[in-house]
Amino acid sequence: MKKQIDKSLSFREKEFKLRPWQLKIQEVIYGTYTRPGKVFDILLLIIILLSVVVIMLESVSYLNLKYNFAFLTIEWIVTGLFTIEYILRIVSLRKPFSYIFSFMGLVDLFSLLPSYLSLFIDGAASLMIVRSIRFLRIFRILRLSRYMIGADVLGDALKNSRHKIAVFLISMLTIVIILGGLMYVIEPKEAGFTSIPRSVYWAIITITTVGYGDIAPVTPLGQALASFIMLFGYAIIAVPTGIVSSEFTSLKSNEIKPFECQNCGEVGHEKSAHFCKSCGYEF
Amino acid sequence: MKKQIDKSLSFREKEFKLRPWQLKIQEVIYGTYTRPGKVFDILLLIIILLSVVVIMLESVSYLNLKYNFAFLTIEWIVTGLFTIEYILRIVSLRKPFSYIFSFMGLVDLFSLLPSYLSLFIDGAASLMIVRSIRFLRIFRILRLSRYMIGADVLGDALKNSRHKIAVFLISMLTIVIILGGLMYVIEPKEAGFTSIPRSVYWAIITITTVGYGDIAPVTPLGQALASFIMLFGYAIIAVPTGIVSSEFTSLKSNEIKPFECQNCGEVGHEKSAHFCKSCGYEF
Amino acid sequence: MKKQIDKSLSFREKEFKLRPWQLKIQEVIYGTYTRPGKVFDILLLIIILLSVVVIMLESVSYLNLKYNFAFLTIEWIVTGLFTIEYILRIVSLRKPFSYIFSFMGLVDLFSLLPSYLSLFIDGAASLMIVRSIRFLRIFRILRLSRYMIGADVLGDALKNSRHKIAVFLISMLTIVIILGGLMYVIEPKEAGFTSIPRSVYWAIITITTVGYGDIAPVTPLGQALASFIMLFGYAIIAVPTGIVSSEFTSLKSNEIKPFECQNCGEVGHEKSAHFCKSCGYEF
Amino acid sequence: MKKQIDKSLSFREKEFKLRPWQLKIQEVIYGTYTRPGKVFDILLLIIILLSVVVIMLESVSYLNLKYNFAFLTIEWIVTGLFTIEYILRIVSLRKPFSYIFSFMGLVDLFSLLPSYLSLFIDGAASLMIVRSIRFLRIFRILRLSRYMIGADVLGDALKNSRHKIAVFLISMLTIVIILGGLMYVIEPKEAGFTSIPRSVYWAIITITTVGYGDIAPVTPLGQALASFIMLFGYAIIAVPTGIVSSEFTSLKSNEIKPFECQNCGEVGHEKSAHFCKSCGYEF
Repeated sequence: MKKQIDKSLSFREKEFKLRPWQLKIQEVIYGTYTRPGKVFDILLLIIILLSVVVIMLESVSYLNLKYNFAFLTIEWIVTGLFTIEYILRIVSLRKPFSYIFSFMGLVDLFSLLPSYLSLFIDGAASLMIVRSIRFLRIFRILRLSRYMIGADVLGDALKNSRHKIAVFLISMLTIVIILGGLMYVIEPKEAGFTSIPRSVYWAIITITTVGYGDIAPVTPLGQALASFIMLFGYAIIAVPTGIVSSEFTSLKSNEIKPFECQNCGEVGHEKSAHFCKSCGYEF
Repeated sequence: MKKQIDKSLSFREKEFKLRPWQLKIQEVIYGTYTRPGKVFDILLLIIILLSVVVIMLESVSYLNLKYNFAFLTIEWIVTGLFTIEYILRIVSLRKPFSYIFSFMGLVDLFSLLPSYLSLFIDGAASLMIVRSIRFLRIFRILRLSRYMIGADVLGDALKNSRHKIAVFLISMLTIVIILGGLMYVIEPKEAGFTSIPRSVYWAIITITTVGYGDIAPVTPLGQALASFIMLFGYAIIAVPTGIVSSEFTSLKSNEIKPFECQNCGEVGHEKSAHFCKSCGYEF
Repeated sequence: MKKQIDKSLSFREKEFKLRPWQLKIQEVIYGTYTRPGKVFDILLLIIILLSVVVIMLESVSYLNLKYNFAFLTIEWIVTGLFTIEYILRIVSLRKPFSYIFSFMGLVDLFSLLPSYLSLFIDGAASLMIVRSIRFLRIFRILRLSRYMIGADVLGDALKNSRHKIAVFLISMLTIVIILGGLMYVIEPKEAGFTSIPRSVYWAIITITTVGYGDIAPVTPLGQALASFIMLFGYAIIAVPTGIVSSEFTSLKSNEIKPFECQNCGEVGHEKSAHFCKSCGYEF
Repeated sequence: MKKQIDKSLSFREKEFKLRPWQLKIQEVIYGTYTRPGKVFDILLLIIILLSVVVIMLESVSYLNLKYNFAFLTIEWIVTGLFTIEYILRIVSLRKPFSYIFSFMGLVDLFSLLPSYLSLFIDGAASLMIVRSIRFLRIFRILRLSRYMIGADVLGDALKNSRHKIAVFLISMLTIVIILGGLMYVIEPKEAGFTSIPRSVYWAIITITTVGYGDIAPVTPLGQALASFIMLFGYAIIAVPTGIVSSEFTSLKSNEIKPFECQNCGEVGHEKSAHFCKSCGYEF
């Protein structure tokens, strides 16, 4: 595997006129199958994790009072490392803009900005939590395993059912607005239904079966309507579930490619089969 | 596509004796594939959205104090536009009653009434939220895309499983009434179980896993029964989900293209069939 | 259909030596397809509904103060009617014990007892809510329609998956007891975790995603464990759903009986097919 | 059946040089199909249940005050019995380490430790709740029935979908951390969003639709974001459900009976196969 990568790297060298040091950096930063690439990816992941944990702990006031200096130090070291990494990623590419404006490139940039912004704006440091998106790089490290197939199937199932999900969400939003409006008319303001947006917020809390209880109906009519919304929400959770389930099931059953036996015409052989399951003809 | 529509319009002109101006209005208001029809649909949608947003914001008291005049102005302009649209929809049809008493016709009417009622009755304005149903017209605009198929499949799945859903809902209501009655006997009134209807309301909150917490059992026996209801509700959510999921899966796997037998007219053959399943005619 | 019933009734008369008046009562009370049977069933259902509504309203204190006499009157009339019906059901049968000890027979008896008990014991009247089980008779009235098939499929799906559901419930109870025990050790008593049973009650509230909020963790460790329980409960709701869904899907796909074409051996014809879909052979 | 076990026992005697008394103990403790083995398993289960119930009741303060002595007595008797059983399990085996370090062996050990620890450390007694894991032995007793198949299918479905579930959980944790961070920035500390970990805790409560209500957003922007999280959580519950459902459905529809090819030993042929899919050997 490593040989293949090396070949493709030297191929890229000739083709794109990349300097040897650029290739070296590429091998480390972008390489997934090479040893230095793997080590780099795992180190990066550990630093990201560390950074996210520090940001979270920093927000806990009594920890911040105690370890403020340690947190700040770690934060700026991590920011420094991320900045160097970001610059290396750009300089090692022939067409860096395709990286800069890619999803991961923007995430990398927005992981750096809050640190520098916090020098000028108070509270910007909390936005550093955006760094946790970088954690999705974990899938890159796991690429060698079958995790990507899992992600692909998830993505496919969601993409195939996007029309049905759109219909479902628009219908649900309409229902929630109407029910929220009705509750605003029925319930007294004291129960928390002080405006239609707030009532719609309550309707969403109820229909999704979250049920905080910060706003709750007090009149019998309101409670009856609330019961209806709950039963409705309970029943229609079946709809998104059904949509995605059937998508998964169909993606799964497709795994048998319908190639035909050239002897008897039988279809539906498993991928691993070497002989036709009906007539014994060797493929 | 436009040509076809134009043809069918001139055909309708001859057949139904519609005046040219009526056809012109029809093309704009009812046309989905014509350019003016599309522009009209999108404009209408924006106005509906604007109207719903204004009604929602109007209910927020501090916004209403500030922008009361602006809100009222927008509301009456929108009401005026909707009224004109409603009249045009009626006069452009040869048989307007089929529109007036259709679902969308009634929604259009009830979108207008609250505005005029609010002149005589206080609070009627809030009922204007009914306008949000009009927002479902969005599916009409998206008709060209595959969204309608999504809606159709959703509708079919729900229609096919209506018997099972009815059995499920009746059984669940019976369970909820009995459990509510039991809790009313077990729990003290101080815990919120002041009457059987209120206890049934609590049972619905619990079995649907909403769980507001405004009413909650305090006795050990009541908590044990509540635990049972929760586990029961958690387990049986599988039932509506299973019903709809299997319906989706079966609708998906069938995907029987409705090609007709040229001999006997039977439809619904499987894709792999070479002979009509009803009369044996070879395709 | 009526003729068939009549035949079977006169057959039973000869066979079981039932008196004509017994047969007459049977036709009314047990007949589902005969006109008097249908009228009786619908009347019975209305009375059951009326009775349940009265019991529920009676528990609302301010309504009870106002309409106490009316409620009591209706209750005793209904109890009287139910008593007469119960006696008639018994005397019209040759082997009444098979009815008395059947599920519906016991429900009918327990629908009567609370009324008579309330003469001696205060509060027994509330147990009359048990009458709502009688409401399940609605399925008998709907028998002519396809509702019973819905109930059958529901029942079959639940029966087929009873082993998996048992495994799931036992595993879940074990998890809930251990997590409840851990939370009891971790959390202070002030947060509501006063005993292990109460902590288990909280764990059930959390794992089923009900979430009342009457008991909630306050320590960071407790909240971390609670987060784990929530994610776990959220993920494993997939298990009962998956069990029942797959059961429904398989019950559905079985609808095609795999009978073989005697000419070409092709299997998997639809029930309605008269010719083999592969070779056109007439069945 | 008993004969077979006896044979295999005497076989083991010769092979592994076990003493007769060791075999006798093995037959009772490890035997599942022998009469003494069954009696032992059922007795053990009753003792485990009794022990768990006592531990739970002991934690209820007013019961503990009353029956403290009885509870302690039962606890120490049970601990004694478990200790004897644990020793017997070890001495009756030739290679006891394979049991000691097996999952059930560790559970058995940890069921004993808290009792002895409670002599030295206060509060350790509560950890005895770990004993409830021993309750999973119930599946051993039910082995003769079809419960194990249920457990196997559950396990297979979860194992097959572990990649997809990992992708799902990592993505969800990332989303929850980002949303928690955002809410920490948006919401005031008074609403309960005092730190990012606490906000993440709230985000988990919300996305899993648990909804305690101990922390709830108060600003319009926070409530809007909360609504989004709820709808998102409501929609994506479809994902784990879909994953597991499709797994169950596929495990069900395959139901490949593992009959072996007598030529090459390949297993897992479909029911309809007439030739081995690997070597072409005719069955």
